[in-house]
Amino acid sequence: MLKTKVSKRLGKIPASPIRKLVPFAEKVKKRGTEVLHLNIGNPDIKTPDEMLQVLKNWKINPIGYSPSQGELEFLNALEFYYQKIGYSFVKKENIQITLGGSEAISLAFFATADLNDEIIVFEPFYTNYDSFAKASNIKLVPVTTSANNSFHLPAKNQIEKKITKKTKAILYCNPNNPTGTVYSKKETEMLIKIARKHSLFLICDEVYREFIYDGKKHISILSFMKKYPETMILIDSLSKRYSLCGARLGTLVTLNKKILDGVLRIAQGRLSAGLIDQYLGKELVNVPVKYLEKVNKEYQNRRNILYEGLKKIPGIFLKKPEGAFYAVVKLPVKNAEKFCQWLLTDFSYKGRTIMLAPAAGFYLSKGLGQDEVRMAYVLNSEKLKTAIEILEKGLKTYNSIINSD
Amino acid sequence: MLKTKVSKRLGKIPASPIRKLVPFAEKVKKRGTEVLHLNIGNPDIKTPDEMLQVLKNWKINPIGYSPSQGELEFLNALEFYYQKIGYSFVKKENIQITLGGSEAISLAFFATADLNDEIIVFEPFYTNYDSFAKASNIKLVPVTTSANNSFHLPAKNQIEKKITKKTKAILYCNPNNPTGTVYSKKETEMLIKIARKHSLFLICDEVYREFIYDGKKHISILSFMKKYPETMILIDSLSKRYSLCGARLGTLVTLNKKILDGVLRIAQGRLSAGLIDQYLGKELVNVPVKYLEKVNKEYQNRRNILYEGLKKIPGIFLKKPEGAFYAVVKLPVKNAEKFCQWLLTDFSYKGRTIMLAPAAGFYLSKGLGQDEVRMAYVLNSEKLKTAIEILEKGLKTYNSIINSD
Repeated sequence: MLKTKVSKRLGKIPASPIRKLVPFAEKVKKRGTEVLHLNIGNPDIKTPDEMLQVLKNWKINPIGYSPSQGELEFLNALEFYYQKIGYSFVKKENIQITLGGSEAISLAFFATADLNDEIIVFEPFYTNYDSFAKASNIKLVPVTTSANNSFHLPAKNQIEKKITKKTKAILYCNPNNPTGTVYSKKETEMLIKIARKHSLFLICDEVYREFIYDGKKHISILSFMKKYPETMILIDSLSKRYSLCGARLGTLVTLNKKILDGVLRIAQGRLSAGLIDQYLGKELVNVPVKYLEKVNKEYQNRRNILYEGLKKIPGIFLKKPEGAFYAVVKLPVKNAEKFCQWLLTDFSYKGRTIMLAPAAGFYLSKGLGQDEVRMAYVLNSEKLKTAIEILEKGLKTYNSIINSD
Repeated sequence: MLKTKVSKRLGKIPASPIRKLVPFAEKVKKRGTEVLHLNIGNPDIKTPDEMLQVLKNWKINPIGYSPSQGELEFLNALEFYYQKIGYSFVKKENIQITLGGSEAISLAFFATADLNDEIIVFEPFYTNYDSFAKASNIKLVPVTTSANNSFHLPAKNQIEKKITKKTKAILYCNPNNPTGTVYSKKETEMLIKIARKHSLFLICDEVYREFIYDGKKHISILSFMKKYPETMILIDSLSKRYSLCGARLGTLVTLNKKILDGVLRIAQGRLSAGLIDQYLGKELVNVPVKYLEKVNKEYQNRRNILYEGLKKIPGIFLKKPEGAFYAVVKLPVKNAEKFCQWLLTDFSYKGRTIMLAPAAGFYLSKGLGQDEVRMAYVLNSEKLKTAIEILEKGLKTYNSIINSD
């Protein structure tokens, strides 16, 4: 008798660079060392009371299915939200509620690309895009961006030369995870031009829309969607905006009717998003404007602390992030993954250590990002300062050991 | 400039026969007619208080990500559950928490079958299996079962002749949705024998495990899993057991380490299941045994009402369902889908009508199930009796119109 074998494609799903060091962190915690998590974008900022109040007042029983497109009240709340930020053309019927931004990206991939088709991304990119692509049997084609240029887009011809007959879409994330880059109007218009010239979909992940610093203006794909209704897909989520990562609340927004019909059929297959989560989400209409203003200010302050703190550490290179709550940081080490692991297994400072995400997993091109990490500033100022101190001490110790070997 | 085109595979995702008539139901509700829903397995029975109490007492803030495998306390609760039903070998590390049973099935498909591979199913089958298969670019190969035989399995050779080089797994649902069939030990052993002989995975969907009537015994795939650890995958869910459909709480259980590792990597890509939902789920350890006993008794009583009531309607054929809360019912009409639509658009009785799921969508073989519907007995006895009365009157009126045409 032969043995059963798992599928070949299962073996191709990459381990998450954000979560792969988790077992080491668990071990060190058991030894009593505190781990400061800068590896994952899991905000420490409180969820709005208006949303949590829903739980206290819960009346619905039983907890039944929600409509596959989404709970009507939550759809209404989102219509209100998009209207409030200036896009009143976005109606309920243009929105598919998803189980987190994650499902929205998976759906966008499936809807735009057939087997072995290609989607262009800018590396370093949010690493899970590649998991979704592999699960959907499509290929991500990376266009490399550079730390020297604050990870802004390269020239048009650098992007266009990656387009083949199999290319179906361009995906970008604005503000960018992992780099914190906020793309200019000019950059956005360049992407639209390329997409239209080559008949590609333009997919934009804007889950960090609210987190833009130094008075910069965010250029949403929504400001072009009405003009190019067939071409554009917005990926959105409440996770970061309202510190709701554990409520799986994403959206896919498009004016393309065929995409909406198709993703709804897929959504019907998986029945519904979470009922309770959507009831939390619908309260966004009652969250005061000052909540987001305060959150924005807090992240900007942390960004400053991180940037100023890291700049002082010898051998570290980074440019000032413009948005989101991440930075890609070049470290004075050869192999950042080994260093990140070492920080967990062999190092602590005053009973604490830090967990970072090695950045190589955010690149597809082999060899890139080996000396980089992604840091998420989802810790309060005090903890962030401690984390920077630990990093400095850690680098010093690590390099003295390495050099004495 | 060419136009952007959605992917070809998007067009192949079938519309859900359970949900496709929803727009007609919405319209009729707006006209003031009450619609009794027998189309969808969305239980009316109350969710246990022990679970809802979690919401009242909610303390966690912010609502952050849960570990990708699942929240530890919920994993512990599930370990406790499987131990309680006699399978103490099922440990936390053998469980992947999923966003509903739906995601568990998708993961099982992806993990066992490569592109264009085949999985054997018994038709009529839970229609969304085909959505997941299409989304995963694999092919379901149906083995037909018959109403005359209460939809029990056909002879071994009937199943084996569908096995090709591309077959990777056999999927069955026990107790069965949509037929209510409960497979015997002999049938289960036959499937195991076939799976082992041909090196196939055996995937069993047991989300209705608790709903078995007339003192029958349920034969779980778990009772063979220890003996054949590489071969078996259990799909499970809290949705039906505790009336928690709107909390997306499924599980994939296997002793196959390669599958567990692979599905965890996919799960890491989508980050986490819902935090709040999992906290509800973990309360299963505090739900008294009598809750499930009462629920079981209630469904058995409804099953009796449905069966006895339908048997009296001229031209209707069904055998007594043995478990779950569904029945596939043959109606004296040529095209059950047209009839179901007509019930919504053109018929009402005392201000009410019924919504049924046309069964053709539960078959892959063309032409089968045209005169069948799936009925879910998720209404209380009184409403169920009314629904049967509406069906009887509806059939009479419909056939008199059809025959006078």
